Amino acid sequence: MSGTCVLVLDAEPLPPLDRLRGRARVVHADEQSLAGQLPAADVLLVWDFLSTAVREAWPGDGPRPRWVHTPSAGVDKLLPELAEDGRDTVLTNARGVFDQPIAEYVSGLVLAMAKDFHGSWEWQRQRQWRHRETIRVGGTRAVVVGSGPIGRAIGRTLLALGVTVELIGRTRRESDPEFGQVYAAGELDGLLGSADWVVCVAPLTEESRGLFDARTFARMKPGAHFINVGRGQHVVEDDLVEALVAHRIRGAALDVFDREPLPADSRLWDVPGLFVSPHMSGDTVGWRDDLAEQFLDNFDRWEAGEPLRNVVDKHLGYVPSKPAGPAR
Amino acid sequence: MSGTCVLVLDAEPLPPLDRLRGRARVVHADEQSLAGQLPAADVLLVWDFLSTAVREAWPGDGPRPRWVHTPSAGVDKLLPELAEDGRDTVLTNARGVFDQPIAEYVSGLVLAMAKDFHGSWEWQRQRQWRHRETIRVGGTRAVVVGSGPIGRAIGRTLLALGVTVELIGRTRRESDPEFGQVYAAGELDGLLGSADWVVCVAPLTEESRGLFDARTFARMKPGAHFINVGRGQHVVEDDLVEALVAHRIRGAALDVFDREPLPADSRLWDVPGLFVSPHMSGDTVGWRDDLAEQFLDNFDRWEAGEPLRNVVDKHLGYVPSKPAGPAR
Repeated sequence: MSGTCVLVLDAEPLPPLDRLRGRARVVHADEQSLAGQLPAADVLLVWDFLSTAVREAWPGDGPRPRWVHTPSAGVDKLLPELAEDGRDTVLTNARGVFDQPIAEYVSGLVLAMAKDFHGSWEWQRQRQWRHRETIRVGGTRAVVVGSGPIGRAIGRTLLALGVTVELIGRTRRESDPEFGQVYAAGELDGLLGSADWVVCVAPLTEESRGLFDARTFARMKPGAHFINVGRGQHVVEDDLVEALVAHRIRGAALDVFDREPLPADSRLWDVPGLFVSPHMSGDTVGWRDDLAEQFLDNFDRWEAGEPLRNVVDKHLGYVPSKPAGPAR
Repeated sequence: MSGTCVLVLDAEPLPPLDRLRGRARVVHADEQSLAGQLPAADVLLVWDFLSTAVREAWPGDGPRPRWVHTPSAGVDKLLPELAEDGRDTVLTNARGVFDQPIAEYVSGLVLAMAKDFHGSWEWQRQRQWRHRETIRVGGTRAVVVGSGPIGRAIGRTLLALGVTVELIGRTRRESDPEFGQVYAAGELDGLLGSADWVVCVAPLTEESRGLFDARTFARMKPGAHFINVGRGQHVVEDDLVEALVAHRIRGAALDVFDREPLPADSRLWDVPGLFVSPHMSGDTVGWRDDLAEQFLDNFDRWEAGEPLRNVVDKHLGYVPSKPAGPAR
């Protein structure tokens, strides 16, 4: 197998791939050189998972890698091109690595918003003692849009805080073991009016693009908070700004944006009630090692001719709950 | 029973005591008038639970109320005077009301510190996109000093986040149903070195006063965070400042202070890594109604000659886990 060529679309810091020594030839590409190097590659590791270079180089001329792995949960930077090339390229993702970190992040946001930590920080800056009453999180209601492993981990953590959680997936599922049921995407409108917390963690698909727009924000409660850890394109950002400025909802936190990094002159930086963080909700110390390890684990399977883990349904745009068939 | 005189040490807003109409005579006192009004009172409701006026008026001349209720968890503003007056005055507190709110607050602080929300807010102010790696809370260790209902609620919430929790009470208890065991106060030193989060929620007693001093902070890990939702006097504030400035610990959050309100010229307002909030960790919307309701519920028992709930052991300084005997 040492003839196997693993092409890495680089990002700093580079992945620790020592375990491949003697088993594969590791070749490095940047966004410019990628297209020219693809024909010689058996495997593509999209280490720079925020790059759109793969979509731009696809399908292109000549052979393509038979397996593409992205160390991210979302695969929207690779689709639809990888789905439409007529080849049986296997696409895998980082399903699992981000579940607990993002669940912690979102629960932290819910609690920080409920307890108005931001307000306390502002008063602290001004050396002013201003006692306020805060929100009791237990007994509130959350709608989590996205019923994959990250959405479920978020839901589980919120349940533990005493929050009533309604999970929304693509299709309705009755008798879910943890959440009672999973609602269908079309049921969102009916659930928004009673939600204190609306969390977006859906995969970005044609159906979910722009889901959170003026119409959606208008259906939320005036006291509601919105959190996006999905993709920036889920939100019509101008509509969110408008909803916050007009106090149609009380607050929001965005970890993802239509343009990343968020430009310094974006108006999103200083909207009252809006918390901006730089796409880091899942990135806990050691995350890159975990991501490399997950790829290497799948490489072992690839080498052994076993089915790969976390195979994405390229037409759905995510790993279905019931794993797809053999990968190779 | 309408001869019963309920004296209220007032604080704004006044408690809703309509339920007492026709059952008791409600008389209002302020800090100045309190001492003169005590002899005629059967029951004292210390609505201004941050006041020290009761200690100052105790024992004083003439009869005293047979029952004193404070709508707070801590009773340090009433002791030792109420314990030492030789009377059998029954003292009750607000045990229970603050458990879930403070557990939420502390969990929120842990998550906010782990995810560095404060850092993100600072970068947001500067319109700068600065990706960082954050702490994964699952798998970390917490020491919670205080094994009463609030400490247990905090521990329970942290357990749900995947944190290993070590609870410290006055005495060691084996085979605790939720925490495996409860450690004795003397075991704190040995546990500090491995704790990522050290939370103080103990009652303020002579043993716990000044517990968190230079010696204690020196035993913590350099990466540790300290949270105080107990009483300000648990902490030697200058020693905490010193530990933060010297990076002996990574961060701290204080909701309580030696002097409250914290004076505008206190150096605590702008110590790097220190989050200051104005004694509000338990105060969720409706908290005053809950506190009044709890007093009224006990008043029903008083009137019916039944044992009161939440009777404080005036020598221990808190409500023992096993309820004390009949109250009246």
